[in-house]
Amino acid sequence: MTADVPELPPIPPELARLRHSIDNIDSALVHLMAERFKATQQVGVLKAELALPASDPGREARQVARLRVLAEEAGLDPVFAEKFFAFVVAEVIRHHEDIASQA
Amino acid sequence: MTADVPELPPIPPELARLRHSIDNIDSALVHLMAERFKATQQVGVLKAELALPASDPGREARQVARLRVLAEEAGLDPVFAEKFFAFVVAEVIRHHEDIASQA
Repeated sequence: MTADVPELPPIPPELARLRHSIDNIDSALVHLMAERFKATQQVGVLKAELALPASDPGREARQVARLRVLAEEAGLDPVFAEKFFAFVVAEVIRHHEDIASQA
Repeated sequence: MTADVPELPPIPPELARLRHSIDNIDSALVHLMAERFKATQQVGVLKAELALPASDPGREARQVARLRVLAEEAGLDPVFAEKFFAFVVAEVIRHHEDIASQA
């Protein structure tokens, strides 16, 4: 029995080219995110050792302000940049709380 | 009248060093995300021209599978990589729908 897969139209060459670039960028993003979490894991361990709070609202406000400026310069929607940062920080804080609870 | 800002403890040098690396990585992430949206905007225009649907579940499933493998190799939580991808794709689809509605 064959699966009931709908026939797909052929992919236009221009779309294939763009998708290949997107895949390359995504590979780079994954590797950078891996490096970022390696650094924030170290921050988490340090904060747990020094009994510093997992979250630092002042640092986060400065990071958001800086990233919004960088986003505008790079042609990225600064609102998206801020949402993206909030998404990543939420994950980092979850990691830090895990580290602190295991300390 | 001065603002009632609580006194902050000095930042340990190791924390300052890690934060500087995180800031560098974030700059790179912002610039890569800007490039990614430039590519997906072109995809959006192309899809609108060719009357292709904004969303492509087969392509997205293949991207998720690929990114999970890359994440594992890079030492990034593949569950986070998948959430990250879903977050970015939601924004891209919103852009494509905007482009299609303006076409």
